[in-house]
Amino acid sequence: MTPESFDRAVQLIQTLPGVGSRSAVRMVMHLLRSEEHQVRQLAEGLLRLKQEIGFCQKCGGLSDQDLCQVCTDSTRQTSLLCIVEEPGDIFAIENTGEYHGCYHVLMGALSPLDGVGPEDLRLTELWQRLQEDPVQEIFIATNPTLEGDATANYIHEKLHVGKVLLTRLSHGIATGASIEYADRSSLARSVKARAQYNG
Amino acid sequence: MTPESFDRAVQLIQTLPGVGSRSAVRMVMHLLRSEEHQVRQLAEGLLRLKQEIGFCQKCGGLSDQDLCQVCTDSTRQTSLLCIVEEPGDIFAIENTGEYHGCYHVLMGALSPLDGVGPEDLRLTELWQRLQEDPVQEIFIATNPTLEGDATANYIHEKLHVGKVLLTRLSHGIATGASIEYADRSSLARSVKARAQYNG
Repeated sequence: MTPESFDRAVQLIQTLPGVGSRSAVRMVMHLLRSEEHQVRQLAEGLLRLKQEIGFCQKCGGLSDQDLCQVCTDSTRQTSLLCIVEEPGDIFAIENTGEYHGCYHVLMGALSPLDGVGPEDLRLTELWQRLQEDPVQEIFIATNPTLEGDATANYIHEKLHVGKVLLTRLSHGIATGASIEYADRSSLARSVKARAQYNG
Repeated sequence: MTPESFDRAVQLIQTLPGVGSRSAVRMVMHLLRSEEHQVRQLAEGLLRLKQEIGFCQKCGGLSDQDLCQVCTDSTRQTSLLCIVEEPGDIFAIENTGEYHGCYHVLMGALSPLDGVGPEDLRLTELWQRLQEDPVQEIFIATNPTLEGDATANYIHEKLHVGKVLLTRLSHGIATGASIEYADRSSLARSVKARAQYNG
């Protein structure tokens, strides 16, 4: 009973992550109440996004140039390389303000069940990059999931012959969390990786 | 440190209802991973929505024609008129499958604090419509909020001289709700409007 382009817009918006049918209808109603130029701005912003943003040729992060802002920043520590699964992970780590090295995006994680093997990740690019520009520390920041752990392990095995320092994101209970209600696996990792107390 | 069109897309998506900055970033990352033709489809769907859908000249509901599907449907009871605040409310009531009359959309509710008076609602259209096509029952389905209640009251006062039957959506506790945890105001309405038990 709804007009065809209404249903179509609802369907399209539902393809976005985290948007169910009710939120999609709510968003479409909001757009219908908005001015036409606002809807046009949104639509054009989405198109520009895809047209203007690609991946950095070096690290694989998001960039509107051949090389991203991190790769062209001469103040970054080039001897330190952080390996992440997705371009979005770079923003999260940058937001901490605690990291000043470079990045390498794998574009995924090993997942044999989903048919994602080493050849599907940007690993060839990684080995090549490490040969051209050797680093002192490789900091693996894959997700604390089965796939992320498997990927970290794989990289560790491939690299363990070199003299490069291999580090990994520490895992454990979150800031502000309560020990009583922490999930067992995070707490187990926290206990196992307990560090010296420095006050 | 993110490309300009990335930030812009995040900002634009955040104007949608219920989308915070983290969901917006997640959606933009999703779009960047999607194929270009998918993003184009989404953008064009949004534009078409605004270009093709307008409001029914009779009831004020959404329509891609001069008159909407309900108003042109000869099987609907024309002696029964349901008054709602927003076009979206029509879909919700249609989805119940319990209503077969016609609709009239007010495009809002009385809200003196926000400067919304009777002249800002589609009330003139309502009086005119009732004069041209008298109905037997007016079913007020405004929201159970301060504004919706005030609007229902206003219509009731304006209409009480006529011999038309005025009904309203019943209010009370929701299906599947627990009495213990129901909010006081809904439960109060449920108690006040208690109906005969018919098994």
